[in-house]
Amino acid sequence: MSAMITINENYLKLQASYLFTTISRKVEAYQKANPDKKIIRLGIGDVTLPLSQSIVAAFHRGVDEMSHAETFRGYGPEQGYGFLREAIATVDFQARGAAVQAHEIVVSDGSKCDTGNFQELLGNQLRIGIPDPVYPVYVDTNVMAGRTGVAIDGRYEGIHYLEGNHANGFVPSPPEFPLDLVYLCFPNNPTGAVATRRQLQAWVDYARAHKALLLFDAAYCAFVRDPKIPLSIFEIPGARECAVEFRSFSKTAGFTGARCAFTVIPDSVLVWDSTGKAHKLLDLWNRRHSTKFNGVSYPVQVAAAAVYSPEGQKEVRELTDYYMSNARMIRDRLLSWNLEVTGGENGPYVWVKTGNDSWESFDTLLNEAQVVVTPGSGFGTCGQGYIRISAFNHREKVEEALGRLERVLGKTL
Amino acid sequence: MSAMITINENYLKLQASYLFTTISRKVEAYQKANPDKKIIRLGIGDVTLPLSQSIVAAFHRGVDEMSHAETFRGYGPEQGYGFLREAIATVDFQARGAAVQAHEIVVSDGSKCDTGNFQELLGNQLRIGIPDPVYPVYVDTNVMAGRTGVAIDGRYEGIHYLEGNHANGFVPSPPEFPLDLVYLCFPNNPTGAVATRRQLQAWVDYARAHKALLLFDAAYCAFVRDPKIPLSIFEIPGARECAVEFRSFSKTAGFTGARCAFTVIPDSVLVWDSTGKAHKLLDLWNRRHSTKFNGVSYPVQVAAAAVYSPEGQKEVRELTDYYMSNARMIRDRLLSWNLEVTGGENGPYVWVKTGNDSWESFDTLLNEAQVVVTPGSGFGTCGQGYIRISAFNHREKVEEALGRLERVLGKTL
Repeated sequence: MSAMITINENYLKLQASYLFTTISRKVEAYQKANPDKKIIRLGIGDVTLPLSQSIVAAFHRGVDEMSHAETFRGYGPEQGYGFLREAIATVDFQARGAAVQAHEIVVSDGSKCDTGNFQELLGNQLRIGIPDPVYPVYVDTNVMAGRTGVAIDGRYEGIHYLEGNHANGFVPSPPEFPLDLVYLCFPNNPTGAVATRRQLQAWVDYARAHKALLLFDAAYCAFVRDPKIPLSIFEIPGARECAVEFRSFSKTAGFTGARCAFTVIPDSVLVWDSTGKAHKLLDLWNRRHSTKFNGVSYPVQVAAAAVYSPEGQKEVRELTDYYMSNARMIRDRLLSWNLEVTGGENGPYVWVKTGNDSWESFDTLLNEAQVVVTPGSGFGTCGQGYIRISAFNHREKVEEALGRLERVLGKTL
Repeated sequence: MSAMITINENYLKLQASYLFTTISRKVEAYQKANPDKKIIRLGIGDVTLPLSQSIVAAFHRGVDEMSHAETFRGYGPEQGYGFLREAIATVDFQARGAAVQAHEIVVSDGSKCDTGNFQELLGNQLRIGIPDPVYPVYVDTNVMAGRTGVAIDGRYEGIHYLEGNHANGFVPSPPEFPLDLVYLCFPNNPTGAVATRRQLQAWVDYARAHKALLLFDAAYCAFVRDPKIPLSIFEIPGARECAVEFRSFSKTAGFTGARCAFTVIPDSVLVWDSTGKAHKLLDLWNRRHSTKFNGVSYPVQVAAAAVYSPEGQKEVRELTDYYMSNARMIRDRLLSWNLEVTGGENGPYVWVKTGNDSWESFDTLLNEAQVVVTPGSGFGTCGQGYIRISAFNHREKVEEALGRLERVLGKTL
């Protein structure tokens, strides 16, 4: 072996660049070539409404505390301040009958980090199930960790893809064979589909039968409007033995630029070493968090805790209601054009079949309607032929975008 | 293989719990048993002075922008906003003759994250050199990644320990044989030692000769007072071919609770795959950052940028001057007791030989003087027999602590 610094070659398996980076580049190039065109972005799922009043007030209070010696805070607990963890446990879980305790909640600066980093705790000989289509971070981070082979026709060797399609309403069922690690995301990104209590129970039963772990991404739970749909996997009996849940303030409270999220790991979730000895998964995550993370910015945690006050709850409900009105408007208009449409009822995304190649549809809509959508194929092979339209924008922009989309989609379909 | 979720067994190799977690637990237990005792913390290196005036004003401005639709910011660039990256490049580097460009600076929420995560980009068959004593994160994160064997007598198989001691002034020289990856930390945590231009040049020459990578942790560079000591590795000719630098606002500007840091990766730093093909290290870090991170909180970035205004520069200099007065006071008093002392002149830590087991000294000082220090052995085998005393506290607390320490250290030494 010659002396030389070498790379993690798993990075070379990654296909092209990260989806949203590619979209940004294409949009930038189009805008540069057409400086007079007004682009409407319904692509990346980013909120547009400002932080609400009581959250802003709390954020300022947090900053003020940092400016006086008596109230200044240096390093906080890596897992988050007690005041925030208690509020989360009480309002988001216990009030809904999910027996989650504050010490089982670990605060972080984002669900992208949490869903991306969580796989580090686990072995590298796992049978992994990942939905298709889904948020690309689950796949990419397992590729980077070396749990896959190379990609062939857009799919990595070593991952079992849980296929979503029109027939199953984009809610895949557990397979007939055992998996060790399963990612789930409901309300789903990108399809906006939700899983029923019965569908989630099937996954929990499957996980318990096979000693598998479910990583449940509930980043969009605040958009569920059907009272029969569970918001948390921990509303399902047995989930405390086999599931982890990722939650974020990003979409719930407009924190995409403020940065706060959390992961719920019941202390009853066990994972095993090769001798068959059981370990608490929560202990492993705490160890990772203490070693590689130093807590979330204090004023941000104060702002996040304000979400749980009665005013905060009312304000963030108004935010999500606004986006859900957009979502239903998009859904209804697209349905009126006789398109195949999923989502938009309990999630802020509308998933539409265009019939054409997804990137081709992306380019057509950018060039002819100056509307940015997300190509469905960026979320997996099953997304080919689809686009994702996001409800995160101002009402009048969404209305204008729908007018423009009608002209193009009416023409090409 | 039976169906079962398994763990990353490298976590089981980690020795006991993370150093500062153990200290917290011991201090809490002592305080609980002795509720009337007034403990003075000179242990964990955490700042105590509040954020300065112009930084607080900027922080508030950032929050205000988040409260209005016209100025609201959602997801920012994962690598940080241009206004911050430009300010860093200009003031921290170009003004000192180091040719670092804004696109080579990647902003994050902390140096612990950056130094912990950076190893992910690299191969797993590396010959790794890590100083002893040093900040434990470099070793622990390589253990978690599986680059080591088990620990024997406090040292992991597969790591080459670069020994610091009284003879070399705690500045290890490059070894006679090749290493691929070398961590350096100057001003050093825990010893407070600094490396001269000549000593750093030797490391850069070594790295270039062996195609090795230097990971240079400059978290404490703002405390250097000797104008002959380089603040950045990029002040050394050749470093742009072989070095990465980690910097933080934590100690420079009191951001331990606000959370902002950055990593500098010149686009001329290459790393190689097993076919001998070269790759830009900056591209790999950008890919990781885009996939697993979503940028630093916007108001925090506005606050960090305020550090670079003329008022900000003056204010943060006052902060570090305050701590450095403490450091020199600690150093001088300990020297007057005829102890072996390192640091305290260009770094906020004073490193002291007690002659006794480090944890024993820790316990003695906690029990008899109610002063929390950090056991040197927590930073590596070469730290055994030493303690680290931090200058991060209020002047009158440091003075009182020195009075108490004199009684105990005078007695036991």
